[in-house]
Parts: sequence; structure tokens; C-alpha cells
Amino acid sequence: MKLKVDTLIINALVVTMDEGGRIMPGAAVAVDSGTILEIGDSRDMSARYEAGATIDASNAIVMPGLINTHSHLATAMFRGAAEDMALEPWLRAAWAREKAMVDRETVALSSRLAMLELMMGGVTCAVDMYWYPEATAAAAQKAGFRLAAGPVFIAGDDLPDGLSLSGRERFAAEFLDRFSGDPLIVSMLMPHSTLTDSPELLSRVKRLAEGYGVMVNLHSAETLAERSEVLARHGKTPIRLLRDLGFLDGRTLLAHCVHVDDEEIALLAGGSAGGGAAVSHNPMSNLKLASGIAPLAKMADAGVRLSLGTDGALSGNDLDMWLAMRLCAVLQKCENRDATLFKAETVVRMATIEAARAIGLGDKIGSLEAGKRADIIIIDLDAPHLTPLYDIYAQLLYAAGREDVATVLIDGRIVMRDRKPTTIDCRESIDALKTLAARA
Amino acid sequence: MKLKVDTLIINALVVTMDEGGRIMPGAAVAVDSGTILEIGDSRDMSARYEAGATIDASNAIVMPGLINTHSHLATAMFRGAAEDMALEPWLRAAWAREKAMVDRETVALSSRLAMLELMMGGVTCAVDMYWYPEATAAAAQKAGFRLAAGPVFIAGDDLPDGLSLSGRERFAAEFLDRFSGDPLIVSMLMPHSTLTDSPELLSRVKRLAEGYGVMVNLHSAETLAERSEVLARHGKTPIRLLRDLGFLDGRTLLAHCVHVDDEEIALLAGGSAGGGAAVSHNPMSNLKLASGIAPLAKMADAGVRLSLGTDGALSGNDLDMWLAMRLCAVLQKCENRDATLFKAETVVRMATIEAARAIGLGDKIGSLEAGKRADIIIIDLDAPHLTPLYDIYAQLLYAAGREDVATVLIDGRIVMRDRKPTTIDCRESIDALKTLAARA
Repeated sequence: MKLKVDTLIINALVVTMDEGGRIMPGAAVAVDSGTILEIGDSRDMSARYEAGATIDASNAIVMPGLINTHSHLATAMFRGAAEDMALEPWLRAAWAREKAMVDRETVALSSRLAMLELMMGGVTCAVDMYWYPEATAAAAQKAGFRLAAGPVFIAGDDLPDGLSLSGRERFAAEFLDRFSGDPLIVSMLMPHSTLTDSPELLSRVKRLAEGYGVMVNLHSAETLAERSEVLARHGKTPIRLLRDLGFLDGRTLLAHCVHVDDEEIALLAGGSAGGGAAVSHNPMSNLKLASGIAPLAKMADAGVRLSLGTDGALSGNDLDMWLAMRLCAVLQKCENRDATLFKAETVVRMATIEAARAIGLGDKIGSLEAGKRADIIIIDLDAPHLTPLYDIYAQLLYAAGREDVATVLIDGRIVMRDRKPTTIDCRESIDALKTLAARA
Repeated sequence: MKLKVDTLIINALVVTMDEGGRIMPGAAVAVDSGTILEIGDSRDMSARYEAGATIDASNAIVMPGLINTHSHLATAMFRGAAEDMALEPWLRAAWAREKAMVDRETVALSSRLAMLELMMGGVTCAVDMYWYPEATAAAAQKAGFRLAAGPVFIAGDDLPDGLSLSGRERFAAEFLDRFSGDPLIVSMLMPHSTLTDSPELLSRVKRLAEGYGVMVNLHSAETLAERSEVLARHGKTPIRLLRDLGFLDGRTLLAHCVHVDDEEIALLAGGSAGGGAAVSHNPMSNLKLASGIAPLAKMADAGVRLSLGTDGALSGNDLDMWLAMRLCAVLQKCENRDATLFKAETVVRMATIEAARAIGLGDKIGSLEAGKRADIIIIDLDAPHLTPLYDIYAQLLYAAGREDVATVLIDGRIVMRDRKPTTIDCRESIDALKTLAARA
């Protein structure tokens, strides 16, 4: 008698991204109750399993979903609204837009559209920092999207969510209570940055996070101006300030880290006993806003844990992790005048298993292995730009794109099949954003 | 009575790329005998024209096809075959592959696949430099693809096409005779570079080109090593050498120009009386091969005529002009630490009307205007990553991608409709390349 499972993916070229970097042609993946049950020979497993849904992945790569470790999903509503501007006018334009448009409902609609974009582009998990994270988290639950999100901490009275500083702590308690133990939502605390938050506030948030047992996510060392300003105000650079405040304990995810010196890189790497911080590199945003090119090759040499993000659609302007991977590799090759750096496999690891580790989910997602949650994408290789195929990782990195993602599973649920999203109504989601933008 | 035309595109948001940068919502484009007959109000024109094919472009951008000014189409057969290598081993690997696989038949098959990729990505015209250009040109005629190609000139006896140097001149005469006056094929002469070709050979080719009244296309100043080598060998840098040989007369297209100093940039710009050379910037290839980032902002300031290319799939690895546009803009913003540089419209012009001028076709293609040939692409805006729409050029540059191209016309012929190529059998083309690669 055959063993019943929810889903069986057959005839696949499985790129596991596991420790050994195993690639398995002619393989099958059995998924049940959201978990990868077995990966093995396709014919053998087809004979042993009976599946609710069988997906034929002939001429396709089956791999872990991509993980976007830095985004502001709801800013999809501002896509293209502030272009070709220097940072200061850009920030003013962005803030004016936020002021006019951001509320709980618009965040829910806009982050839903962003998740649709991400899922259609093979991203199965994102770290999101934005106002009304509860609205985004609820949208993620509904969409079946894996999300790391949480309360934002920033001083000021006139902010889009109307919370006071003390209100933020109460809100954090509510958020963590509401989403704790959720199979899809990972809570983090999100102070904005060392530029906008005082050392006192940062310390308080860090203590709170320790109390809740969650990670902290913030921006750091994104621009030279930020570095100078933090240095002038506190007598130390952003990363040194974070060290002194106890953030470099292995439980922090830092977005950007473009402007860091060698000593700061060593601090980010941590010691042999662990520590440091994981970094989310956002090449598209850093280039477009003219922030700079992060010294990733040095960070990699030092052992900093590296992952990739798209940033928000206000700076990006799309949420394309394939572009983030490609840019990451070629920028480092060129900056360091060494085409052998950041090999294709290394960069695909940054967007999968290394990203999972960066957000504390290394034992749960990021690679295809029995026992892990089934966050799986299927890349259709049957396209002119993916022909011929000599080198699997190079094809993924330098030729494949978001449109080649045919089918996506998150936590075992098929959220897109043959380019058709199953959990979000694409028409309705697009139309809602058009209505929203027309109001602006 | 209604006027009969071949094709009428209705309900379009037409982005003309004409001198005034006109954008026309609710517009129609009438095409007959390969020519744009009229662009105007959609309702009015629908009432006046009767079309063989009517294309409803509701919620779509209609714009001129993209022009790729530097490629080696047939190298699609080597896509991903030489990865993460320094330039010297990379060149050796590439040449070994060429030696083993290149002949008239493989060039025809491989360049056909590349044209399919290009057309599906909204590229309606490409400059191609490769062995057996007659095979590629014949494939382009069949595919209905607009191609600038021509005889390669390089010294040596053991080259993939088996021609001797004197044989190349005879071949050039044959090629120009065969394709002269063709509606789709533009002949150019293609000496490889100032590195591989002697000044004597370059001079001879230039004189030949003048005799035939055609442009010359070559690589120049791609790498620092090339610059140093040319300087050591000839006592002058590549661009100065080209000046002394009479190439900077406004009839030359130079690929790359990464390593040029201020004086060379002035030479490329030419004077008020014209001259200089058009430049094809290839950001993806330059990054991936660690060649460097071309000083495009300086070139633009000096008035150099700028266009964009993908280079070949051996260095790229795909032929994505949307990526070329996006990289061009953001690299210059970041390199010059000025986010206001290379505005979206400017870069879209580089890939359309400026590119047309760079290859001597400015009066024929590159913008949508009555009287021009109908090289037209239709971009479907109905996608999450293209929602909402505030800024048309920013959406094209920073959010749209090759997959958003729905329909393509070249010289008035519909070569792709609703993502379905009409002139190349996609299945057969992909399978042919797989067979080819398996033989390697």
C-alpha cells in the first residue's frame, strides 16, 4: 500500500542547498503537513507515495525558496513616486507620501501586493520593517507567506502609526502575544537605526528583545552621512555604538552596512565563540540611492554572516531577489577586480540557507532536507534565455529571473502553481493598489 | 469608407521617444507596409482605419523596440560554460569552446536562439559581431529580426571560420553584395579590437568601410590590461590610436570604452562639426568580467553619443536589455554619488532613439513617429511589480523586465503576440541548442 502525502514533486532536478551542496537529478520531493518528508529517486518514490497533488517538475529546478532579509513591503504603494532625487529631498518626498497615505488598511493592501510580487518571484520569506506590522503579519497569514516582522521603535510624536514611545512598548507586548507560535510569522523588534534612535532607546529595545527571546533588526551604516552624523553625535561609528550597546551578540540582523571599516567588519563577524551580527546586503537600493557598494568581499573573508535583501519599492523599485543575487556577485567581482570572487553557488546560498540562518531559521528553512518545512520553488528551465544548461548555479544567478518561477510552496502549501497565485486574488490586489494610488 | 492598414494598435499609452519626449495616453498606432502611418487618438483612429490585425493595448505601454548595440549572438551556445574565472583563463576556455563548436550551422542555430531571447525581451534590433555573420544575417532575415552585422577582421590563420586575411576581404565583398539594400540587415565592418588587430589592418578595414559606405564596429578600451598593452605596443592608448587611424569620424561604433581618460572622452565626443565615435556601454559584462565601470557620466557631459549593449551570453550570461538599462542608471548614480544622474527617461532614450542614431538608423527606427519603420513593443502593465504607476519612465527602468513584453513588431511584422513568437519555432530552437550542447 502506498503512503499518502499531501504533495509529491517528481522528475525534478533538486538543488538542495544543504551542507554538502547536493544536486539530485531525476529526484522527487515528498511533502506532508508542511514538512519535507523525503527527497530521493523519483521513480522509486513515485512507486511508494500517493499524493494529493503531484507536480511534474520535468525540465525544472526544484530548490528552496529565496529569502529576502530586508524590505518595507507596504512601500509598494509608493513605487516610482520619488525618482532621481538626492537623499534629502527623497526622504522628504517619501515622508510626505507616508503621511498622506499610510494607515492600517493601506498597509494591509500594499503589503499584500508586495507579497504577491515576492511569491511570483520565488521569494517564500521576507523580513519586513514597517508601520502597522500587525496588518502586514495578518496579510501574510492569509496569503500563506512566511514573514519576519515586528514593532518599529523610533522616537517622535507625529509618526504614521500615531503611537507614542511608551505606546510602542505596549504595542510590542500585544504583537508578540498575538503572533507568538505562529507557523508563518517570526517576531523581531525593529528599532529604525542608530541615526534615528538614541542609545537609550536602542538599549531599551535590546533588553525588551532579550526578555521576549526575539531577534532585533535595524538599519546601520547605510550612508556616509549617517556614519558621520552618528560619529559626531556619539563619538563612535554606528557599528561600534551597537557593540557598546550589546547588539553584537549574534541575535541582530543589520540592513546595509555599506560604510564599515576593517575593525567594524571584525566586530560584525564576531569571535570564535559566536556573536557579531548578520548582515542584509541590498545592492539595488544602495546603488540607486547612491549610498555606495558594501565591502562584501572583506566581510565574507572575515566570516560575517551575509544575506540579501531588496529594500522597499520606494528605493528599489521592485522586489526582485534574482536581481539582488546577480548584482551582489558582479559588483564584488568588479569592485575587487577579481572575477573569481562570489562564485554563483556562494551567492545562491546567501539567498537561501545563509539567509535562513541570518534570521534564526536555519534549522527550519533555507535548504531542502527531510524534516525541514517545505518552502520550495520550481524554476522552469524551458526558455530560450535558460538554454543550454552547462552550470546550474550560473544559470540561476546570471540567466534565470523572477518570471521563470513556475510554482511555489510555502510551509507545504502551494501558493502559486504554473504562474497562478492561489492564495491572493491578483486582479483584486492590483486594482486595490490602483485605487489607492489614484487617491494620492 | 475606412482606410485599410495592416495593423492597428489601439487603447495604448504611447511613449514615443521622439524629440519632444511625447507621451500619449488613449492613443493608437496605425502600421502599414512596415511603416508607422499615424499615431493619434485611439477612438478617432479606430473610426477611420480598418486593420488586418487589431491589437488592444489597454493597460499597456507602446514604445519603440529596444536596440542592443553590442552582442555576440551565437555565443548563446556557450551560456554558462566558463564561470567565475579571471580574464585569461576565461578567454582560453572560451576559445577552446569556440574551436570545438563553431561552424556555419551552429552559428545559425545559436544566433536564432539568441534572437528569440532578444525578441521575447523586447529587443527589435541588435548589433552582432561574430564568425559566419552571413549565417546570423540569414537567420535574422528568416526571423524578421533587424540586425547590424558584417565581416570580422582579425589576423591569424587558425580562426573558427577558417578564413585567411585576404580571404576576409573577398568575403566582405560577398557579404556586402548579398545583404546590401536588405530591409532588415545593416552591414558594418567589424575589426575585433585595437588589441588584436594591427594598425595596418585597422587602416585597411577603415578604408574598405569608406569604400562601401558602411560603419565600423569594434571593441575598445575594455580592460586596463588592454589599455596598457596597446600603449606599450604602439606608444598610445586605444582611443588615441583610433583617432590617428581616422576612426573618429562619426562612422564608428565602439564597444565598452571602460578605461578612457578625459582627453579620450573629448575625442569620442567629437567636435561641433561632428566626428567622434558612438559608444556601446555593456555594464553587465563589464561588471561580471571585472573590467570596471565606464565613466559614463563624464562621457554624457562631454556629449559622447551613448547606447547600451548586453555583450554575448558567454560574458553576460543573458541578453537582457532591461537589466542593461537599469544597471547603467544605478551604477552611474552610485559611482558619482549623485542619485540625480542618469534619469530614467535619459536611459530609456539610450536604449531606443540614441541607439538608433549610434548605428546610423536614427531616421528609420528608435522612436515612434509617422514615417518611421514599425519596430514596436507592447509592455503589459497588469502585474503586481508594475503597480501602482506614478512615473512611466521609472516603471520601465526600475520595475519592468523582459517578461513584461507582450507583443513585438519588427518592420511592421508581428514577431511575437501575447508572449508567443510567430517567426521562430521556440520548441525546435531550444531543442536544437540542447542537442548542440550535449555534443560539446
